[in-house]
Amino acid sequence: MNLKNLSKQDTIIAPATAPGMGAIAVIRISGPKAITVTDKFFCSFKKGKKLSSVKTHTANFGEIKDGDLVIDEVLVNIFHDGKSFTGEETVEISCHGSTYITQKIIQLFVDAQIRPADAGEFTMRAYRNGKFDLSQAEAVADLIHSTSKASSQLALSQLKGGVGSEIEKLRENLLNFASLIELELDFSEEDVEFADRTEFINLVKSIQALIEKLMTSFALGNAIKNGVPVAIVGAPNVGKSTLLNALLEEDRAIVSEIAGTTRDTIEDELNIEGITYRFIDTAGIRKTEDIIENKGIEKTFQKMDVARVIIQVFDVTSTTPSEIEKRAESLKLKYPTQELLIVLNKVDLIQEATEIDTSNAKRNELNNMLGKKDSNLVFNWNLNTKGVTFIPISAKSDKGILKIKQELTKLVDLGSLNTGDIIISNARHYNSLKEANESLTNALIALETGLPSDLLAIDIRAALHALGSITGQITTEDLLRNIFGKFCIGK
Amino acid sequence: MNLKNLSKQDTIIAPATAPGMGAIAVIRISGPKAITVTDKFFCSFKKGKKLSSVKTHTANFGEIKDGDLVIDEVLVNIFHDGKSFTGEETVEISCHGSTYITQKIIQLFVDAQIRPADAGEFTMRAYRNGKFDLSQAEAVADLIHSTSKASSQLALSQLKGGVGSEIEKLRENLLNFASLIELELDFSEEDVEFADRTEFINLVKSIQALIEKLMTSFALGNAIKNGVPVAIVGAPNVGKSTLLNALLEEDRAIVSEIAGTTRDTIEDELNIEGITYRFIDTAGIRKTEDIIENKGIEKTFQKMDVARVIIQVFDVTSTTPSEIEKRAESLKLKYPTQELLIVLNKVDLIQEATEIDTSNAKRNELNNMLGKKDSNLVFNWNLNTKGVTFIPISAKSDKGILKIKQELTKLVDLGSLNTGDIIISNARHYNSLKEANESLTNALIALETGLPSDLLAIDIRAALHALGSITGQITTEDLLRNIFGKFCIGK
Repeated sequence: MNLKNLSKQDTIIAPATAPGMGAIAVIRISGPKAITVTDKFFCSFKKGKKLSSVKTHTANFGEIKDGDLVIDEVLVNIFHDGKSFTGEETVEISCHGSTYITQKIIQLFVDAQIRPADAGEFTMRAYRNGKFDLSQAEAVADLIHSTSKASSQLALSQLKGGVGSEIEKLRENLLNFASLIELELDFSEEDVEFADRTEFINLVKSIQALIEKLMTSFALGNAIKNGVPVAIVGAPNVGKSTLLNALLEEDRAIVSEIAGTTRDTIEDELNIEGITYRFIDTAGIRKTEDIIENKGIEKTFQKMDVARVIIQVFDVTSTTPSEIEKRAESLKLKYPTQELLIVLNKVDLIQEATEIDTSNAKRNELNNMLGKKDSNLVFNWNLNTKGVTFIPISAKSDKGILKIKQELTKLVDLGSLNTGDIIISNARHYNSLKEANESLTNALIALETGLPSDLLAIDIRAALHALGSITGQITTEDLLRNIFGKFCIGK
Repeated sequence: MNLKNLSKQDTIIAPATAPGMGAIAVIRISGPKAITVTDKFFCSFKKGKKLSSVKTHTANFGEIKDGDLVIDEVLVNIFHDGKSFTGEETVEISCHGSTYITQKIIQLFVDAQIRPADAGEFTMRAYRNGKFDLSQAEAVADLIHSTSKASSQLALSQLKGGVGSEIEKLRENLLNFASLIELELDFSEEDVEFADRTEFINLVKSIQALIEKLMTSFALGNAIKNGVPVAIVGAPNVGKSTLLNALLEEDRAIVSEIAGTTRDTIEDELNIEGITYRFIDTAGIRKTEDIIENKGIEKTFQKMDVARVIIQVFDVTSTTPSEIEKRAESLKLKYPTQELLIVLNKVDLIQEATEIDTSNAKRNELNNMLGKKDSNLVFNWNLNTKGVTFIPISAKSDKGILKIKQELTKLVDLGSLNTGDIIISNARHYNSLKEANESLTNALIALETGLPSDLLAIDIRAALHALGSITGQITTEDLLRNIFGKFCIGK
């Protein structure tokens, strides 16, 4: 099925800006009738001026009218066929930002046989018209959803085609070889080998090395895109909420400086140096703690399993160093792959220095951080559990919060983002790479055990298919519907 | 203070579209540095192309960059000085609709000394640059807030300057005469009368007639702009919620047809033929009903006082015609200016016809409306209270709902909206008209009792001031701040 022929059939319309009240709202119309139908309703303030005769990339001021009735004063941007986001003739109407007016204008066009766009349909058309590949189309959605510097950078580099061109390179190398194998199949009765097996084994191995590198980058890419999941756990009243608020406070202040933005959707997210840390709701863990201990229910721990970082909070006024170390060890055993931060809260309430052998340097550093530089009060519990970081804080007075943030940033190495290496951030791409890798491993086995060309060909075709599905060179209607259906309306 | 000189001092920036996620977001920049500062960050995809050299009303595709870092791919609309909404050099940046990206771009401009705009500042600049008068500027806000056909039409006609030019006409007539009076003051020692007193009395009377006509239109204008407040009251379980849902249902279905819009803000509003009916929360009335009857607390009735329509619901299965008529009479006494609809719910449950003398025609009409055309069951309570409309319904089965809607539409006569008469919809304008009217009445008294010219001049100046404050010919910083401070950011 040639998808590219489908796209120019009809003309579609949708609001392109966020719903709700604003100074202006933008409505997008794309398709062969975009300009002629707009001309029916648009009345330019320059008498007699018709949109069908204006240049591409011009803004035209006038009114949208339903018969004699003026619906709104608008500004209409015109983009000619082949020169727009979708690659089709496109009209963008900036009207006053009232939901009523936006609806009314859309209704007018719908009554004139312009179809309301499906979710993601504008981007799907851009893809079908060859404006970009599938991984770039997916980047458009990522860019809209981006909430941090790193995630927007990642989406932008993907939009520029980084992932796609890397995959294409791998695929072309494989394709060259695959065609030789297919040729062998045509001459199968003559038992010839056009493709040099040793060369091919090397090629497959080098492709696999690249695929594995991309797959490894997914951990970082996913953390950047979706945020690093952090679970804050601890007994009641140890100060979990105070800690969370202290962590979020500064960030909130920065964001709310810029008026007109809403914090609703990013309530429990923290941005440190361009990376989003997403705090998982662990309320359930506390409530059912007894049941867990008694009945061994694992369900509640699933949230901690999902976390990349676990912050366990202790109240130092109601616990002992040995209890904490015991817990630290059991945490390390239970969550070997997670980063573990043990936060010792309320250290400001400890009045006496406990005499444990600790270097003065370390004690001074701690007291300095806690604002006790010139005080006799010292906090010098010498905790040590391998693979666990201990951070003494006073959440209430904001002491030690910076240290937690520094530890969090250490966990995510942005090096590869800055060097321009390709990073995979899309689970679909990751799965396709995994499929390709498995098929290539099977191909290697076939090659090394000397299996017949037709079996080898099956594995190579599967690998080519998996790689091609990333950029959309090989695709199905279902796949497209699945990808673009997740987009918002108007994109 | 010449306000017009203030406006071109600095360059301002704000998001122009609603906050939240969308395909695109638009950022607006207005002021003398709009284009040159955008050029610092904008990198056109047409190599070497600078925004400072492009024509007005063009859309330019490229990237916004912070140094080497690409922040987003954008489309930039350019409007030259004098050719934009504000009347100043303006840039509109369409970026991807992520809150993060919008913030990031704004931050970039703010760091380059572009000031974040105050609420309504773009429209205030448009007013100061003489793009429209104050009543038109207020219409911009009304247009954005409009939620119905009538309210958007009203705002649009005000935006076109209807109110302003009407007021200006009155003011000019008055001004001509006032200047003669002021001239008399200059020659006060000579006791001359330049202004013909009889002519002036006629002029003031004709101006007052026009002012009163405008003031009268405020009732309709306010109903159109803010919706007609409707209170639904009644004892528990008579079917108030079912009735409200039945009234809202169809309207909801129509609105939700157009995707991407939110119903949240207009939850309990009903649109019939372009007019919004706003259902007031009267939950409190029911809860404290006993207390009201016992202690005569009037507070709960304030909501009913505010309503323009009171719908009192009865369950006919648990009440008698005489009880209903008694209530109808007391309602009419208590709320003489409100429209009273008494809704007789659950008439479908009345199994037997009560034999009251009622014409067959009326009974047939009722039964027809209730879908009992061919049934033996009839509903023929013959209720009659002057000034009260009785509507038998079955809210559950949607019978009679249309009749309520028809009665509601009868209450608002849209005639004057359609004839193009000027309608006042702004409370500030109404108050200014009232002030002008009072001053003119005082002036009339002064004229008729032959008070000296200097006292007459004070009244005329006060009237001129009141009229001038509507269009903004006479204004203060406080007034402007008050008006534009209610606008949203970015408008």
